[in-house]
Amino acid sequence: MANSLYDFGMIGLGVMGRNLLLNMADHGFSVIGFDKDAAKNSALEAAATPGTTVKGVAELATMVQLLERPRKLMMLVPAGQPVDDVIASLLPLLEQGDVVIDGGNSHYTDTLRRVQELRPKGIHFMGMGVSGGEQGARTGPSIMPGGDLDAYAKVKPMLEAIAAKVKGVPCVAYLGKEGAGHYVKMVHNGIEYAIMQLISESYALLQKGAGLNNDQLHEVFKNWNQGALQSFLVEITADIFLQNDDKTDKRLVDVISDKAGSKGTGKWTSQDAMELPVAVPVIDTAVAMRTLSGYKEQRLQAETLYKAPENALHVPADMWIKQVHDALYFATILSYAQGLAMLREASNDLKMEIPLPEVVKVWRGGCIIRSTLLEVFTQAYQKNADLGNILLDENIAYLVESVIANTRSVVAQAAAAGVPIAGFMSALSYFDAFRTGRMPTNLIQAQRDYFGAHTYQRIDIPGTFHTEWQQH
Amino acid sequence: MANSLYDFGMIGLGVMGRNLLLNMADHGFSVIGFDKDAAKNSALEAAATPGTTVKGVAELATMVQLLERPRKLMMLVPAGQPVDDVIASLLPLLEQGDVVIDGGNSHYTDTLRRVQELRPKGIHFMGMGVSGGEQGARTGPSIMPGGDLDAYAKVKPMLEAIAAKVKGVPCVAYLGKEGAGHYVKMVHNGIEYAIMQLISESYALLQKGAGLNNDQLHEVFKNWNQGALQSFLVEITADIFLQNDDKTDKRLVDVISDKAGSKGTGKWTSQDAMELPVAVPVIDTAVAMRTLSGYKEQRLQAETLYKAPENALHVPADMWIKQVHDALYFATILSYAQGLAMLREASNDLKMEIPLPEVVKVWRGGCIIRSTLLEVFTQAYQKNADLGNILLDENIAYLVESVIANTRSVVAQAAAAGVPIAGFMSALSYFDAFRTGRMPTNLIQAQRDYFGAHTYQRIDIPGTFHTEWQQH
Repeated sequence: MANSLYDFGMIGLGVMGRNLLLNMADHGFSVIGFDKDAAKNSALEAAATPGTTVKGVAELATMVQLLERPRKLMMLVPAGQPVDDVIASLLPLLEQGDVVIDGGNSHYTDTLRRVQELRPKGIHFMGMGVSGGEQGARTGPSIMPGGDLDAYAKVKPMLEAIAAKVKGVPCVAYLGKEGAGHYVKMVHNGIEYAIMQLISESYALLQKGAGLNNDQLHEVFKNWNQGALQSFLVEITADIFLQNDDKTDKRLVDVISDKAGSKGTGKWTSQDAMELPVAVPVIDTAVAMRTLSGYKEQRLQAETLYKAPENALHVPADMWIKQVHDALYFATILSYAQGLAMLREASNDLKMEIPLPEVVKVWRGGCIIRSTLLEVFTQAYQKNADLGNILLDENIAYLVESVIANTRSVVAQAAAAGVPIAGFMSALSYFDAFRTGRMPTNLIQAQRDYFGAHTYQRIDIPGTFHTEWQQH
Repeated sequence: MANSLYDFGMIGLGVMGRNLLLNMADHGFSVIGFDKDAAKNSALEAAATPGTTVKGVAELATMVQLLERPRKLMMLVPAGQPVDDVIASLLPLLEQGDVVIDGGNSHYTDTLRRVQELRPKGIHFMGMGVSGGEQGARTGPSIMPGGDLDAYAKVKPMLEAIAAKVKGVPCVAYLGKEGAGHYVKMVHNGIEYAIMQLISESYALLQKGAGLNNDQLHEVFKNWNQGALQSFLVEITADIFLQNDDKTDKRLVDVISDKAGSKGTGKWTSQDAMELPVAVPVIDTAVAMRTLSGYKEQRLQAETLYKAPENALHVPADMWIKQVHDALYFATILSYAQGLAMLREASNDLKMEIPLPEVVKVWRGGCIIRSTLLEVFTQAYQKNADLGNILLDENIAYLVESVIANTRSVVAQAAAAGVPIAGFMSALSYFDAFRTGRMPTNLIQAQRDYFGAHTYQRIDIPGTFHTEWQQH
């Protein structure tokens, strides 16, 4: 091997970068990684499967020289300035036709700028979302690349080899132009925020409504994971309830603080949705609730100031578990519906040509939001690739109708009993507004014209109108 | 008057600019306006009250020369580039110590930049929110200035003269440094979005729940405006239901389209709240519902696909009107609570030193969100100027407790009957989360650590922790 060149290079050998490289090597590609930290280079080589070709070097130029041309390399460094710094160091070392992939969580506007800056220099820059965590990177992540289609063709064999497989189909596809890869990953994360919020609300409902303990919660989520709710997040939730704390005799979940952190991609999703604009209120709500979880002192103060409602939840456990199951199924569909509607709008608005039928196929395996529901959505998009909102698919409408009564029951009972279920309420109110041909927002138009002369449209005559409203 | 100089100048003589100038002139100030459009200059002079000193000119330099030094002038032009263009034309004409006010709806980050660019040149630049519409500008708006305190002192007499008065106190005060004026106005508009959404939901609830016609709706809102809900928005809503259409024999509200427009300040509020971060979910929801109102075609399609729930609302009208009243009172308090919490956080985070006791006093009159509730909030801040959230004030807690049972009843019934009340649900779920000392977000922290090694905090030991979670 001494004189041969490597198939693929990686800049940044943190856990994710190392695992992706090892995954490629396991699939027969010769790979080389660069990290200034020599310990990480040795760790990479030490972790290689015997018989695979894996090298770590401490000089960027060395790695670039040792790559087969056109070069194919990826960076996995923190979003923001570090990405620009790496590009600046790489540029003098590259040649026309080389492909540089940013596999981190960059904001799509940064990716778009970099694509446009590097294109005139003949360098193909691709933004690529990778989901699945450390474990997924090693054994099969979901991969969301965007950029030039011909650049994608050059890295397609590697990406298809390392991606998760569902029914033999790799969870990777070309997902659109310019910053599309990072855009899809951002929305993926927004949906992830929404579903995590809904699962946490289900947890509260089951605890408060049916008094379930951690063993029982484990059983409920384990059962749910064998049915229509089958998904990675439900699966790991079942595990979580059984994990013992190594510092006390309690279950770990009970000693974890309720101040939830975030790395900002959910926030980006909501902010960008408002910019388009498109409505993603379940994601907005999930972002808001994580924020509110941080206001611990005020919440503790408020707890002493406000009485709990008198109507505690009184529901037979079996019935309640079934109702909460249906509400979670409903609201999970709504979370995907909002995220996918956002992708469709963004694709049109930002001219990214994001293929939604491919997006839902890619999400079926490897990623955090993988679930059996994605098969349902894949079928919907196979019938109609330009579906405006998955709620308009007849099969999905049938599924929603099958759980809506129980969803209404859960929301009504939680409202009466004072259990905060912002995500469920947000999903239900979006749904009820969405299936309403005429919303009461005509009144808002009247108000705006009354106080600000902002004009209004009519239902019967085209144009805009203004009225001198009379006081009474 | 020929040789004397004018007290105040205005750039841009649209309705707002003209009305503010005429308002100043009525209070004894000599004023001069500039607009390239000669018709607007004549319109200004023609509208002046006899005996007042009002002049319109078509050259900017002429206006600047005719102003008393240090000059005090305001621009009312569209936000964005036009403001920068005006500044560029003004700069060569000004002298050190002059005060330039931007009275439009600029984003506070633009205002901050302009303040900082003009400060080294000795020009005081102030961002100032003005609310009250055309009518308010003429007879007494609510005025939200921010910037240098010594610059405010120079314009204070004019601003106090023209502002709305509540119990003899002018609705204007110095509201903080740098971009604080426009920040406060942005949040004002966010709260305005929230309350308008809530009123539109009340309208739907009263129509669907009690079958009220427009005359009855007028009566309900008119009565509400004489009690705890007294406010400008409730008052004009009562008027709206009586307005006849001049093109058909219907009431105007019934022929207005339900596609609601917006000028973006609600969106800014939500986006900036996420940036801080602080939770303002009722505002987020109002923004999302305006957006959803635009998806008319999809909603009409969905209406044919989904059945309405079987449980129609069946409530005696009197009881229902009282319950909806209480829910609107509750959710309106929550809208202010979220907006004011945002201002407190922004003031600290962006070092604007926004005095919340002054903000609520300024909002008591002249502006779109003026209401009798602002007296309640003023009292709360007089007791504690650094109140973290108005929900933590004992008197406000008492008011909230007095309406919470009916609020829960409305939300539960609307959930069962399928009436979309996203704003009410959002207010209730925020409240229930806020008064919860321990949220179920510990589960979210567990999930994040499980799949992404994002670490978590514990309730018993400081620090951050990571666990190798076990599969079961």
